[in-house]
Amino acid sequence: MRQTSRKGCGTMKIGMIGLGRMGKNMADRLRAGGHQVVGYDISPNSGRDVDSLQALVGALEAPRAIWVMVPAGGPTDSTLDQLGDLLDRGDLVVDGGNTRYTQDQGHAKALAARGIGLVDVGTSNGIWGRQDGYALMVGGSDEDVERIRPILETLKPAGDSGLVHAGGTGAGHYAKMVHNGIEYGMMQALAEGYAVLEASDLIENPDEVIDSWRKGSVIQSWLLDLLAQSLRQDPHLAHVAGRAEETGETKWMIADALELGVPTPAITTALYARQSSQIQDPMTMKVVAALREAFGGHPVQSE
Amino acid sequence: MRQTSRKGCGTMKIGMIGLGRMGKNMADRLRAGGHQVVGYDISPNSGRDVDSLQALVGALEAPRAIWVMVPAGGPTDSTLDQLGDLLDRGDLVVDGGNTRYTQDQGHAKALAARGIGLVDVGTSNGIWGRQDGYALMVGGSDEDVERIRPILETLKPAGDSGLVHAGGTGAGHYAKMVHNGIEYGMMQALAEGYAVLEASDLIENPDEVIDSWRKGSVIQSWLLDLLAQSLRQDPHLAHVAGRAEETGETKWMIADALELGVPTPAITTALYARQSSQIQDPMTMKVVAALREAFGGHPVQSE
Repeated sequence: MRQTSRKGCGTMKIGMIGLGRMGKNMADRLRAGGHQVVGYDISPNSGRDVDSLQALVGALEAPRAIWVMVPAGGPTDSTLDQLGDLLDRGDLVVDGGNTRYTQDQGHAKALAARGIGLVDVGTSNGIWGRQDGYALMVGGSDEDVERIRPILETLKPAGDSGLVHAGGTGAGHYAKMVHNGIEYGMMQALAEGYAVLEASDLIENPDEVIDSWRKGSVIQSWLLDLLAQSLRQDPHLAHVAGRAEETGETKWMIADALELGVPTPAITTALYARQSSQIQDPMTMKVVAALREAFGGHPVQSE
Repeated sequence: MRQTSRKGCGTMKIGMIGLGRMGKNMADRLRAGGHQVVGYDISPNSGRDVDSLQALVGALEAPRAIWVMVPAGGPTDSTLDQLGDLLDRGDLVVDGGNTRYTQDQGHAKALAARGIGLVDVGTSNGIWGRQDGYALMVGGSDEDVERIRPILETLKPAGDSGLVHAGGTGAGHYAKMVHNGIEYGMMQALAEGYAVLEASDLIENPDEVIDSWRKGSVIQSWLLDLLAQSLRQDPHLAHVAGRAEETGETKWMIADALELGVPTPAITTALYARQSSQIQDPMTMKVVAALREAFGGHPVQSE
């Protein structure tokens, strides 16, 4: 299938479920692009246009299109379940959240049994997307994807890149998952390099070294720009705790890579580094310390 | 010390030793910037202006400045040795090559004994530097660095970034070394992600997925742009062998990181991946196969 940069083909009316940071900003970008958006969120303080899923469905004319932008897992499962009951044959649901690609097939099958289409969309660019556009990775049938093309064209960044129909059901979330894996690896590489600069006595100004790489170097990148910015605001990152979360996608990617027989050691070690950072007093090091004491008499530190 | 974007302060006359791809392009960029460059190379077919180091030194007026752009190790050692004999007190040598930072101190000491200064410069941007400028990481005394500032200002890219005085002797090469380590890690992350996209049945167009990430995604970067370009020219990289070289800097960085006690697992695994790619029929897997046969009767493949 094809990446595409075709210009928007008119405007649409669409429902948006979930008006958190992502959904709200996407609705704003869509409205600025001339689309009609009917917003719904479980929270009354969300600025929602309607106060129930039923009302949302009632406010749209068939064939409807509804973008679901709620947390992956339970909230998405439950929303898709309810939409299956509420929507009509010929309607279309877009799952723009971070659903695990292995779940998309089940969701699509349940909706298809009622004649409802599903398109899965992985989105990148977080808080910057409202202004600059979202990188969109799309999975689903050609027909379903074409139906929401005007929406996709408005959400994507200007220019040729930023939107790809990556394959059938699940391919959008799969591509986003791989994107996040790469992101973990790139961030870890930057992090390790910066930590070495900080630790070396030779380097007097690690923050300025980072900043100097933003132009003319092989590693120039948006992540490097963001690191330079963080260091300007907080030299040596004195106010940032040395712990990072992981949100699932990279773990899922590694799990699939293992099955595919594709080694991903750098991305895996990036995930491990985040997981380790969350563990205080890790059991692994308890074991190592205990064994060192046992065979070598090396003293252990007590709790 | 400080990153700086001060505009060039006039033009200079400088010697350039080594007119290979890097040296030749840097000489061209310097001449285009109004500097006088006297070029020397051991090869008569290099387009050199003079045919010996003696003649190069004779063609420059004291206090001289000479940029050395020859392969690290033997060629650089020998060039600096000879310059130590040929130059006068007050002259200045710039080592723009990929010398290991641990060697810079020795070079500087030998030259300083004769009153000659040394500045070490790590350069990035390879074949693109002539047009776009080189990211320059500089080590040496304030005084020596100031003397060649007009040269540095011309070689660097336009704008605020691209030039940093990272510290004393060795700091330029050290910063470049860390840059290359980060580069290895970022490349490995991209490589692993692309390999997963290629291997998955879900993704119909891995090259277009890569291309779509060039705008609006968190991983947008020059390396991603280059990968997209490579894939356009050679889909699936069918004509590229799956082997990559390593050129030393990352290995040196990891060695120092080990001494500093800074774990660099992602960068290290990127280096290992390159080293492994160079080894056909690796001894490690011979051992693993032999042990599997020994304890489990799993058949080994014979040479």
